Amino acid sequence: MNSTQVLFTSKFPKASSLGEETLLIYDKFLAKKSPAFRKWVKSFALTYPVQAGEGLKAVENFPQHIKALVKLCENTSSRKLTLVVAGGGSVGDFGGFVASVLKRGVGLVHVPSTWLAAIDSAHGGKTALNVAGSKNQIGTFYPSQKTVLVKPLLLAQPAERNFEAFSEVIKIALLQGGDFWAKFRRESKVTGDVLWKYLPQAIDGKLRIVKKDPEEKSGYRHLLNLGHTVGHVFESYYELPHGIAVNYGIDFALRWSARKGLLSAKNEEELRSAPVSAYLLSAERDHLLSAKDSVLKKWSQLLLQDKKKNSSRKIRFIFLKKPGTSHIEEVTVDEILMEVLRQKEDDLHA
Amino acid sequence: MNSTQVLFTSKFPKASSLGEETLLIYDKFLAKKSPAFRKWVKSFALTYPVQAGEGLKAVENFPQHIKALVKLCENTSSRKLTLVVAGGGSVGDFGGFVASVLKRGVGLVHVPSTWLAAIDSAHGGKTALNVAGSKNQIGTFYPSQKTVLVKPLLLAQPAERNFEAFSEVIKIALLQGGDFWAKFRRESKVTGDVLWKYLPQAIDGKLRIVKKDPEEKSGYRHLLNLGHTVGHVFESYYELPHGIAVNYGIDFALRWSARKGLLSAKNEEELRSAPVSAYLLSAERDHLLSAKDSVLKKWSQLLLQDKKKNSSRKIRFIFLKKPGTSHIEEVTVDEILMEVLRQKEDDLHA
Repeated sequence: MNSTQVLFTSKFPKASSLGEETLLIYDKFLAKKSPAFRKWVKSFALTYPVQAGEGLKAVENFPQHIKALVKLCENTSSRKLTLVVAGGGSVGDFGGFVASVLKRGVGLVHVPSTWLAAIDSAHGGKTALNVAGSKNQIGTFYPSQKTVLVKPLLLAQPAERNFEAFSEVIKIALLQGGDFWAKFRRESKVTGDVLWKYLPQAIDGKLRIVKKDPEEKSGYRHLLNLGHTVGHVFESYYELPHGIAVNYGIDFALRWSARKGLLSAKNEEELRSAPVSAYLLSAERDHLLSAKDSVLKKWSQLLLQDKKKNSSRKIRFIFLKKPGTSHIEEVTVDEILMEVLRQKEDDLHA
Repeated sequence: MNSTQVLFTSKFPKASSLGEETLLIYDKFLAKKSPAFRKWVKSFALTYPVQAGEGLKAVENFPQHIKALVKLCENTSSRKLTLVVAGGGSVGDFGGFVASVLKRGVGLVHVPSTWLAAIDSAHGGKTALNVAGSKNQIGTFYPSQKTVLVKPLLLAQPAERNFEAFSEVIKIALLQGGDFWAKFRRESKVTGDVLWKYLPQAIDGKLRIVKKDPEEKSGYRHLLNLGHTVGHVFESYYELPHGIAVNYGIDFALRWSARKGLLSAKNEEELRSAPVSAYLLSAERDHLLSAKDSVLKKWSQLLLQDKKKNSSRKIRFIFLKKPGTSHIEEVTVDEILMEVLRQKEDDLHA
């Protein structure tokens, strides 16, 4: 994998600094909202506004998009062309996929506009489209040449986005441990400034894992799924924001790790007493766990649809031994559902 | 680039030898024509017949194909899945593209059924789809793990296919020179057996060039365009088979190389006197060159549409100094058209 240059800046980068010939794909909502963003858009000769969301990623809409984009860049040299992709996760997934296949691959720069994209999806090279409503069924591994983090763009997000993004930072801090966790554990306020402060370490932590397994071949990259196996179930079933669902998913993984004795009582206590862990505890969560047969049956289906499953019934689950030391174990869907029942039981008796 | 294993065999390979879980994408015409092929198809648990041709490569049809393919392999593990792609160029381009994006990349085995695919398109990793009628506007570099050359499948082609494929072998032999050219130059019969005999050297010659520039970054891979710049114009304008058009294109490049003094008189004489060169000379060709303004204007447009152009008016042209020694030079479209006029003039006075 080619390594990505990650840049932190307080200003929108000049079009000419991003490539010889550039085409900007951007979330049109950003232009509507911000005069500074509109001004930046105008500095590009070629622009393609899109509506963010899963519809953008639907393969059914891909022919019309690619037709317009091929037409738009017909007078550029494919050797010199760089797509600059400004937006959140869906815009990044779509724009990254386009860059990876247009003329068999052109230059790519990500300018993430959401915390989730800035921390997670804009790094590591995954691109994706949805097929017949199923997420990320096709895609490529195509790291950007540059990812530019623009402080005013990220800080312009509403406060609830900060809250949602926090789980991805906790995830990386737990996986990474060391100095990152030692500092981050002391944070209790979920603000944009705190996120901006830890952004370099969070990105570095993710990229360290990605570098060991860029195309998900050895399975090491699977560590990044900490909290996501059950998180995705909550996300689908309750239609929760990704970050909130992952928050509950991490808590689920930690409790299971403790029950299995992987996370020692001492380490669990230390972890739970960290100021940042207040974020993981929520009265809401208790209501999410269900003991109903009909619900568990649906969850079983959702777990098996997880495209990261590596056989019909076994799923790789990420446990934590302590911050910085994780453990991948193959578990069955039934084992996960049993643990759901146990955690539900715990909650009832708490 | 991962290196591809190239296998030569007199039998259809067993499905189980090609991957843990396999899905066969195949040209349905082959099944119609050959009982042996039909029997082979039946040995695969998952199969997807396609109609070969440019329609298969149209991105407008891609959503319906990928939807069916995702559905077809929903119970397989994406880590274990290998697509086996049996057919000619269009089927290989399509199937290779699918393999490169399905679940962000699954295993790929090519089983080319035409000489052109067996010699050229099944090797080197290029995949492609067409956008709004323009060829190969999107695609990936995705070399197969294996490419299997099945003798009876290739020899079943009609004789005119042999003739068309010969130009690609001449091209590689001219680029490679050495022992390959020394032997191949003595061939005068264009038969399937001769093609089969030189197939390993032709593939090896192509892969040697590809290895030095797998993703067309340094420009070295452009050597493979010998005879193709003008060949593509003939192919589009006269709707000729690719191989025939390339045949004329190579002759055009050799004559231009001689006129520019790059190919010395001695080397030209030696080359023209080789038995195999009889194949390059054709009375037909003289009628293809045109001096008409309206035709040249159209050719100019066709030359500029060549997606390998690297600026608005300059095109990289491949000249030959002698077998084994080529020369890439940037020329303008006008220079190419001037040479067309000169060769037309030569023909009139010959």
